[in-house]
Amino acid sequence: MTSVTVIGLGLMGKALAGAFVRAGHLTTVWNRTAGKKVEGARHAADVAAAVAASPLVVVCVVNNDAVRQVVEQAGSLEGKVLVNLTNGTPSQAREVAALVAELGGGYVDGGIMAVPQMIAGPGALVLYSGSEKAFTEHRATLEVLAEARFMGEDAGAAALYDLALLSGMYGMFGGMYHAFAMVRAAGGDVREFAPMLTAWLSAMMAGAPEAAGEVVSGDYATEVSSLAMNQVAFPNFVEASEELGLRPDVLLPIQRLIDRAVAAGHGGDSLTRLVEMIKE
Amino acid sequence: MTSVTVIGLGLMGKALAGAFVRAGHLTTVWNRTAGKKVEGARHAADVAAAVAASPLVVVCVVNNDAVRQVVEQAGSLEGKVLVNLTNGTPSQAREVAALVAELGGGYVDGGIMAVPQMIAGPGALVLYSGSEKAFTEHRATLEVLAEARFMGEDAGAAALYDLALLSGMYGMFGGMYHAFAMVRAAGGDVREFAPMLTAWLSAMMAGAPEAAGEVVSGDYATEVSSLAMNQVAFPNFVEASEELGLRPDVLLPIQRLIDRAVAAGHGGDSLTRLVEMIKE
Ligand SMILES: NC(=O)c1ccc[n+]([C@@H]2O[C@H](COP(=O)([O-])OP(=O)(O)OC[C@H]3O[C@@H](n4cnc5c(N)ncnc54)[C@H](OP(=O)(O)O)[C@@H]3O)[C@@H](O)[C@H]2O)c1
Ligand SMILES: NC(=O)c1ccc[n+]([C@@H]2O[C@H](COP(=O)([O-])OP(=O)(O)OC[C@H]3O[C@@H](n4cnc5c(N)ncnc54)[C@H](OP(=O)(O)O)[C@@H]3O)[C@@H](O)[C@H]2O)c1
Repeated sequence: MTSVTVIGLGLMGKALAGAFVRAGHLTTVWNRTAGKKVEGARHAADVAAAVAASPLVVVCVVNNDAVRQVVEQAGSLEGKVLVNLTNGTPSQAREVAALVAELGGGYVDGGIMAVPQMIAGPGALVLYSGSEKAFTEHRATLEVLAEARFMGEDAGAAALYDLALLSGMYGMFGGMYHAFAMVRAAGGDVREFAPMLTAWLSAMMAGAPEAAGEVVSGDYATEVSSLAMNQVAFPNFVEASEELGLRPDVLLPIQRLIDRAVAAGHGGDSLTRLVEMIKE
Repeated sequence: MTSVTVIGLGLMGKALAGAFVRAGHLTTVWNRTAGKKVEGARHAADVAAAVAASPLVVVCVVNNDAVRQVVEQAGSLEGKVLVNLTNGTPSQAREVAALVAELGGGYVDGGIMAVPQMIAGPGALVLYSGSEKAFTEHRATLEVLAEARFMGEDAGAAALYDLALLSGMYGMFGGMYHAFAMVRAAGGDVREFAPMLTAWLSAMMAGAPEAAGEVVSGDYATEVSSLAMNQVAFPNFVEASEELGLRPDVLLPIQRLIDRAVAAGHGGDSLTRLVEMIKE
């Protein structure tokens, strides 16, 4: 069984290292600040020792600057595969890939589509991209953490899909939080409301494949719900929020996109037309 | 079987009237602009004739001003129940309820949680509030359209929950559209991406009951995903979008809420803390 090193013992790094330990891998860990411990793992004294301990080095730290600092302390990466599970941009991933290649290592970038509690459990997914050879070599070990999906040899691919999925999530959370705030401000029971909200969002989400088809075809004509109708209804949302003492900020950019789309003559099109308005 | 009148034959009104006709109700319709037809329905010459034709009058027009204009043309509403399925605010619903009461009618406000294609099919839901007596009297007829859920005697209750659910939907759509735009701008296949996105959003939605519990208890401490970590990751999303020539506008208000929450000392709390930041 492959030995594995985990660098970074934040909420996520701890979950990753714990999963490797439980799966029976000889696991070495390192964290910048001493004191963070993972039961059953060896704690290396510095980055170079942590990297030397295993052919597979998983890095999960706060951001890309921290990744670069870790790589700079690694020494040679000859014969190593570095799997970077830190959130970053496609450009950052490509830069780190080049840096790791210079040091003789194989590079795989990854985007974790899970919260720490989901690691090594059902529903967890990690997107990977970069060296397919390096990925394939360590695929079985990486599958300890989550379903492993390879997105392509462009090191930036995993980050792209990660950030796209996260943007969907942030939008959804923004809407959900606003909905909770409205119900609470009106004296309603947020706990009773939550299943009503998720049922509704699930029903509306069922239109995603059709929306994707509209985006690909560029045909946004609708018999369902026009931008013009949504433009008329939007002020109700803003007004009701303000009457409840709430800031409608979360949804104002969507109103602006709708207004721009209608002004550009697309009032008869579906909401999906807004995808076209996101271009600069 | 109750006779029913539908006023307003837009995308939604047509679907409502068609459903009543197919269910065997004697259906009378009226639309401001002549020419919109519903097969199997009687077309009244004016609002007063349309209202006179049935004990149950369903109004589904563009907005609250249009509702008021319809009510003003109705003449007496003695012995009638007016069910207003036009999107509006809780305040607007209460005002129309008062107006209808003055004219001798029973008033039920409603929020349609469905697109026209879903009417009379599985998954469609309409929220109702106002006169419980009037609702109960016509419940069976209204159930032709969708599951009918009564939210309380406050005429504004249906509108509140409707707008809260819609705010969740707009947030989710905004995030989904941004995600589609990112994938397309990077040359990816939006159709292949759509099921990946919905699987991810469904997984993240599973946290809604827990989030509702946090809102009710006011305890936002987390071992999952802290505001501080999200604050660090957010610029990646903005940077990657801009590198793809996209405007990150849809998600900027969420970034501002995160920044405000962290600045207020809540960096160790979960994202759900943002519900508290929506207050004015
Ligand atoms: N938590 C989640 O739900 C989740 C989900 C998906 C992806 N992620 C991603 O996973 C990564 C880690 O997240 P997290 O939740 O574990 O964050 P976290 O709890 O804030 O931990 C951050 C880690 O980065 C380390 N670090 C910071 N600066 C460093 C530097 N200059 N050199 C070396 N190490 C440094 C910290 O070490 P110290 O202990 O010394 O500060 C700590 O171990 C992030 O990119 C995040 O976006 C997290
Ligand atoms: N479509 C959906 O997916 C959906 C979903 C849920 C709720 N709703 C709600 O349902 C309502 C109607 O939506 P829709 O999609 O049917 O909109 P729509 O297709 O734009 O139709 C608007 C209707 O309102 C009528 N109208 C406008 N001003 C009027 C006035 N002053 N007096 C009388 N009638 C007037 C129009 O008549 P003319 O033909 O004369 O213009 C038309 O029949 C809205 O409140 C909407 O928010 C719609």
